[in-house]
Amino acid sequence: MKVGIIGTGLIGGSLAKTLRSSKFCSEIIGMDASTSHVQIALDSKLIDRPVTLEELCQEADLILVTIPVNATKELIPALLNQISGTQTVIDFGSTKAGICEAVDNHKNRSSFVAAHPIAGTENTGPTAAIDNLFSDKVCIVCEEERSSDTALKLAKKMFKNLQMRVLYMSAEEHDRHIAYVSHLSHISSFVLGKTVLEIEKDEKNIFNMAGSGFASTVRLAKSNPHMWAPIFAQNSAYLSKALGTYIENLQEFKNFLDSNDEKKMFDLMETTNDIRRVLKGIEK
Amino acid sequence: MKVGIIGTGLIGGSLAKTLRSSKFCSEIIGMDASTSHVQIALDSKLIDRPVTLEELCQEADLILVTIPVNATKELIPALLNQISGTQTVIDFGSTKAGICEAVDNHKNRSSFVAAHPIAGTENTGPTAAIDNLFSDKVCIVCEEERSSDTALKLAKKMFKNLQMRVLYMSAEEHDRHIAYVSHLSHISSFVLGKTVLEIEKDEKNIFNMAGSGFASTVRLAKSNPHMWAPIFAQNSAYLSKALGTYIENLQEFKNFLDSNDEKKMFDLMETTNDIRRVLKGIEK
Repeated sequence: MKVGIIGTGLIGGSLAKTLRSSKFCSEIIGMDASTSHVQIALDSKLIDRPVTLEELCQEADLILVTIPVNATKELIPALLNQISGTQTVIDFGSTKAGICEAVDNHKNRSSFVAAHPIAGTENTGPTAAIDNLFSDKVCIVCEEERSSDTALKLAKKMFKNLQMRVLYMSAEEHDRHIAYVSHLSHISSFVLGKTVLEIEKDEKNIFNMAGSGFASTVRLAKSNPHMWAPIFAQNSAYLSKALGTYIENLQEFKNFLDSNDEKKMFDLMETTNDIRRVLKGIEK
Repeated sequence: MKVGIIGTGLIGGSLAKTLRSSKFCSEIIGMDASTSHVQIALDSKLIDRPVTLEELCQEADLILVTIPVNATKELIPALLNQISGTQTVIDFGSTKAGICEAVDNHKNRSSFVAAHPIAGTENTGPTAAIDNLFSDKVCIVCEEERSSDTALKLAKKMFKNLQMRVLYMSAEEHDRHIAYVSHLSHISSFVLGKTVLEIEKDEKNIFNMAGSGFASTVRLAKSNPHMWAPIFAQNSAYLSKALGTYIENLQEFKNFLDSNDEKKMFDLMETTNDIRRVLKGIEK
């Protein structure tokens, strides 16, 4: 089988590494908007051969789309126009409703599988690619009833090869939930980073006082804006609701601080310690 | 030299481990409000012998106070009442102004060194104690001009033994800065945890969709409320200001979301990526 990867960054590059080492495919061809990324992907043997979009659509049995979600939304309908019925297209975007809607009435909709692997790091580009990035992680597949049996079977075979656990849900359900457990964390982290960097302008050397707790909380503020701005824009409705609730809860905490209500702060924290139960399943 | 540790939790226990393995002292005596903590500290050889407060004040050359900041503020004046001029007391609390103020006019003020090591984990109790917790970390010493040469020299010798780098600043300066780079991170993390746990009540299985990014951002929500509620209460003025700025910045981001202003979200994130410069010095 020949795999074609569109976007040789962290996700595309990591897919290439694992699919190659597990012998899932005989050849990996690829392309990227950045010519330097393509060159690095070629030099580091992530891809066997750089191709044009036309060549990729002609040759690849399985097409993996790992580019920002705004570009994905535009590209998938164009891809479905060009492929034959025996080819399968899978996208890996962090939003699903907009992308699914873009192909809703497409005659080749059934060749497409809408997926979101819950895996990644705050780093980007082909040099950030990691073998086993997906191992033991969850992959969410949306609108699986709209994909053909052939396409879905191939996608599931690949996710199994990547050692992922597949969950199914609607695109709306995905976007509503992911707003809380992924997108909101990124905003919380970016805005915390912004707040502290602004203070640093007046208070030099403040970061000598920052420790591992601060580092953990703002780690996601290192993430790539080219990837995240389109995600936030596509999931703005659900995300705005989640962010609104977060702001309300922070305001409540500020009220506890301003009235020096230590008991209420204590109770909130003690209840929230229940997060240990959740994190046990995520942290390694 | 005989060291007395008041509070055999994460910080006290980790101090004991390192000071013992580096042969800084000949004996470590200790006490804790929790009898089970004392027993664990004894069984795991963190301390050689459990003592009463009276015995500790009579015997220890160096007294290390590693208990919540509200208890510290009450205890330090009482300790200074009981010790002789040749003994030294060091506290390790995360707030400094309230504690320094409590001993400001004490006749034995010069036997006291106010310190805050930028080291810790989200875990608590003697079982969380780690050797080398303090290695290569910063220790902030406040009002060093109020400590005697003897007390300061001994404190510096110990911090050197722990392989810490010492920074000096006023207690007010410490509390103002630490509000941003430590205390605010804890609130951001606790309230994010609360927000998502509340959603979970209606949306079962939502945490199947959470990944390492979420885990990193809410890690601090595992922290001990007995330690953190008093910290927030003692630093409420500076912390309320920092939290107010954070809320304003989040509200600004929400406005970008609601007006779907992808460009402004992008610019904010791109500017904030500068946090990489800061984190390079902190992350290991």
